[in-house]
Amino acid sequence: MSDIITRLQQLRKNMKSAGVDIYMIPTADFHDSEYAGTHFAEREFMSGFTGSAGTLVVTMNEAALWTDGRYFLQAAKQLEGTGIDLMKMGQSDTPEIADYIYDKLPKKGVLGFDGRTVSANEGIDLADKLAAKKGTVKYDEDLVDSIWKDRPPISTEPAFFLPEKYTGRSIGDKLSFVRNFMKEKDCDAYVLTSLDDIAWLYNIRGNDIPCNPVVMAYSVILQNKAILFLDERVLNDELRQEFAKNKIKVKPYNDIYRYVKKFDKGEKVLADLSRVNYAIFGNIPGGVNIIDEYNPTTLEKSKKNDTEIANIKNAHVKDAVAMVKFIYWLKTHIGKEKITELSASDYLEGLRAEQEGFIEISFTTIAAYNENAAMLHYEPTKESDTELAPRGFLLVDSGGQYYEGTTDITRTIVLGDIPAEWKRDYTLTLKGNMNLANAHFLAGCTGVNLDILCRAPLWNMGLDYRCGTGHGVGYLLNVHEAPNSFRWKVREGDNAVFEPGMITTDEPGVYTTNSHGIRIENEMLCVKDVENEYGQFLKFEPVTYVPIDKEAIDIKYLNDEDIKQINDYHKMVFEKIASHFSGDELEWLKQACAPLSRF
Amino acid sequence: MSDIITRLQQLRKNMKSAGVDIYMIPTADFHDSEYAGTHFAEREFMSGFTGSAGTLVVTMNEAALWTDGRYFLQAAKQLEGTGIDLMKMGQSDTPEIADYIYDKLPKKGVLGFDGRTVSANEGIDLADKLAAKKGTVKYDEDLVDSIWKDRPPISTEPAFFLPEKYTGRSIGDKLSFVRNFMKEKDCDAYVLTSLDDIAWLYNIRGNDIPCNPVVMAYSVILQNKAILFLDERVLNDELRQEFAKNKIKVKPYNDIYRYVKKFDKGEKVLADLSRVNYAIFGNIPGGVNIIDEYNPTTLEKSKKNDTEIANIKNAHVKDAVAMVKFIYWLKTHIGKEKITELSASDYLEGLRAEQEGFIEISFTTIAAYNENAAMLHYEPTKESDTELAPRGFLLVDSGGQYYEGTTDITRTIVLGDIPAEWKRDYTLTLKGNMNLANAHFLAGCTGVNLDILCRAPLWNMGLDYRCGTGHGVGYLLNVHEAPNSFRWKVREGDNAVFEPGMITTDEPGVYTTNSHGIRIENEMLCVKDVENEYGQFLKFEPVTYVPIDKEAIDIKYLNDEDIKQINDYHKMVFEKIASHFSGDELEWLKQACAPLSRF
Repeated sequence: MSDIITRLQQLRKNMKSAGVDIYMIPTADFHDSEYAGTHFAEREFMSGFTGSAGTLVVTMNEAALWTDGRYFLQAAKQLEGTGIDLMKMGQSDTPEIADYIYDKLPKKGVLGFDGRTVSANEGIDLADKLAAKKGTVKYDEDLVDSIWKDRPPISTEPAFFLPEKYTGRSIGDKLSFVRNFMKEKDCDAYVLTSLDDIAWLYNIRGNDIPCNPVVMAYSVILQNKAILFLDERVLNDELRQEFAKNKIKVKPYNDIYRYVKKFDKGEKVLADLSRVNYAIFGNIPGGVNIIDEYNPTTLEKSKKNDTEIANIKNAHVKDAVAMVKFIYWLKTHIGKEKITELSASDYLEGLRAEQEGFIEISFTTIAAYNENAAMLHYEPTKESDTELAPRGFLLVDSGGQYYEGTTDITRTIVLGDIPAEWKRDYTLTLKGNMNLANAHFLAGCTGVNLDILCRAPLWNMGLDYRCGTGHGVGYLLNVHEAPNSFRWKVREGDNAVFEPGMITTDEPGVYTTNSHGIRIENEMLCVKDVENEYGQFLKFEPVTYVPIDKEAIDIKYLNDEDIKQINDYHKMVFEKIASHFSGDELEWLKQACAPLSRF
Repeated sequence: MSDIITRLQQLRKNMKSAGVDIYMIPTADFHDSEYAGTHFAEREFMSGFTGSAGTLVVTMNEAALWTDGRYFLQAAKQLEGTGIDLMKMGQSDTPEIADYIYDKLPKKGVLGFDGRTVSANEGIDLADKLAAKKGTVKYDEDLVDSIWKDRPPISTEPAFFLPEKYTGRSIGDKLSFVRNFMKEKDCDAYVLTSLDDIAWLYNIRGNDIPCNPVVMAYSVILQNKAILFLDERVLNDELRQEFAKNKIKVKPYNDIYRYVKKFDKGEKVLADLSRVNYAIFGNIPGGVNIIDEYNPTTLEKSKKNDTEIANIKNAHVKDAVAMVKFIYWLKTHIGKEKITELSASDYLEGLRAEQEGFIEISFTTIAAYNENAAMLHYEPTKESDTELAPRGFLLVDSGGQYYEGTTDITRTIVLGDIPAEWKRDYTLTLKGNMNLANAHFLAGCTGVNLDILCRAPLWNMGLDYRCGTGHGVGYLLNVHEAPNSFRWKVREGDNAVFEPGMITTDEPGVYTTNSHGIRIENEMLCVKDVENEYGQFLKFEPVTYVPIDKEAIDIKYLNDEDIKQINDYHKMVFEKIASHFSGDELEWLKQACAPLSRF
């Protein structure tokens, strides 16, 4: 705590010498990534708050930290004694960060931030707002770096080439797609900085962000060549050869900032200003014509090709083998030996690690027992770790990164007696999940159209889950991948029209504070259905092959169509994975996949 | 046909003297009304095409008429020999009207149209487009008027005041609402020209458009007074008194065009440029600050107040009495006497006319037998009128204007044997209708979120109805009223978030060309449901009280929830209206409302 006070004093000294009145420290790397490496933990270093989301704003005599409802308790505790005010986001009396800065900034004052950690659009909005006060922004200096003596370096883990048997598409073919898009938009250059788009485009994977197998890099694509800005030491011979073959030049990671300064006046440069950072944007000379378009790679990458789809299904069979072994183990060992949320997570990770082609888990496993599961983003820690007893639910949300794809699955597992209300919630969650999975819809629909199919059984009882219903999933990439999703509220960049090949999760739930949490999650592939005089119909095919615990179903909440959907799903699961089991496990799987019936 | 050729020659003469190269004639009155009086039928007069939608474009040596799929056959026939090309809208090789005009216009050419018949936004878009060719628009002359010798005058039917026992809200109160909105937007004046908004605001009704009880008028609202531009002869003493009481000045209908020329530079004028016509917009001097906002009256009027709601329910009881008597008559007389689509329509209108407070029908009755009903916008005419036989379906979509509100209902009535496929389509339509009617949803949802609840049973079978699912309904006003609707595709100005008091139709259907058409339509009132930690839930309450023909239901397509929904609806209907019947009619109603069961 006294550390924090000292650090804030040092920062204010740095601010003074830099001529900065207010300094803002978001939680972000230089690529608008969902998760960031340890090098980028400046906000945590400066505030002591360890949550995954938050923005610290420091004035000459005040400091304030914005974070969301998940972290109010934790942040209040961690900020105690630091002099940093907690700003509870989403509460009506909490000012917006930009309004707060505007109020506190002296006339003609200077707001500083590391422009690499703020998106171009956010930076532009801030600069516009402060202009009314003749304020300016200074984005070209990281005022924390000199304070943070033992700062971890930016990750430079070895990268590897992902061959066509996995990607289904060559680098050359993907570059052609991008270059055709550039021609359509009449652009000379394209600045691409989002790490998963770069990994997809260059068929490169790495290990620079935990659970996200990406490589720290920027890229500029021209018609006759492409440039990758990354630490050359991460490349192996195979990658060097592939890059040479495709006229991909490698330059040092930081050179992007100098490179974009050399764009000529009148040149037309494509850049997704919601993803490219403000420092890159700011370094592009005035007079260059910046064309702001969503990265075309984002939509293209979301439509998995046939090779990817075949691989993904294999990955899900492996993942299902691990999950079924886990559930069987849990059900047969609960109450007989000590099992905690963390030890269960470890056991599951061990089973995944036994699968051929497994690389790492795709996100930190959420294993949450009973009331812990009511916290939507709970991850067990040593402090919170809870021992499981033979009653109630264990919610397990987990996934793996395989050469054959990325998985994400949630099962809520019955450990013993379950109260009637929990069974009702479980059954309605399952009904919603299945109703969405069995949707048939005309091409042109988005997740905003379909979301209610999943939510209706809960809404009909006055329940809701206060978050989206599902998100896109990458291929050996990020487990949360735009632009497809299921959500009832429109969110820009995340409401793509469904197209065949897209994979989206279907994960409704019920979260009752201090009581219980339920979520049932499958991944679904969008495929073609009939085409007729009304148009092209689409539907979903589940690619998650793990039985859904029937022990918590209260059948009175299900109609005959619901029951058929559940039985069809389990029949499919059994056919897909039964050959991987024998003996008692196979017997258990048979029971787990047996049809429900009213009598 | 030779008439048309002569008229086009005369128009071209007028164009030459006016310095116009291309002249455009849309189908519209001066108020962006859905239906227009006979005075406004210029497009029909000039082309001979009698359909309800179309735009005629005349160059010095060509002429072309755009219309939509409903009218391709009819238009082709009616345009034969006129030299006017038919432009089939929605077909990929049909140019957009604006592109056609742009192509045909000579450099620095002039496009003419009567600016009163084109919305400000459309006119602005056209002028912007033609500017690239240094073309201009001339909007201040109606070049058809001098050709049309026996043109009907603009309607000046008597108007009447609708007292508070019907409207629930005084003129003064409504003007206060508008003036508060003007203050919020910091505006000095508000130009309102949509007829139903004017009728609502001034509690005035009339008879200037068939089925729409509106009065031809424009209005300008200031903080200290309001001006109504209309033909003073339509007013009665009661209206004069009300207007005097509320400082509402009356000026001649056409004076609006001079009035808006006198706005001062720097004045801030509120105007909905999607509704105000281009001539008014064009007459507002440059330098006046036009604030373009949706008419605030449109959303406000859609939320019916408690008085209106109570009245509307009464109107629907009356409408139900007429409808039930009609259905009973039809079922007991079919095959015994000659009944045609038109004679059935007339009989139904007669039954409505017997109801106290009935004014007129709210739109031309659609009574469509079997394959005729497959045409979505079929209205029986003397030529098409079809005799009914004791087999198949009669689809009847009809409604009334009552002092207590506007009604809109469709029933598809079984006249005898029904093939299995028709029963399937009927049952799925009913299932969709009921599923939507029984929705529970969080405040914030729009029709785009809910639409699939209605469409899913059809989409699941590869069927669709190619139109929205439902529309808002006015109060003794237009039967189609924005801004609430059910549709899966976003349409600007028509996707309002649902609020208590809104009334929306729920009218799925199946339309199989040359075979059969089915539609089942109820009106539904949006009401509050539970409010809890998840927010405010909303639901619908049906306000249409007419049994839905059970004879075409194939119960195998319904699950237990569907059956319960249908039974609950019929129970409610019987309780609402049974007291108005006796003898055989009551017996029939009892059967019609009896519960469905599988056994």
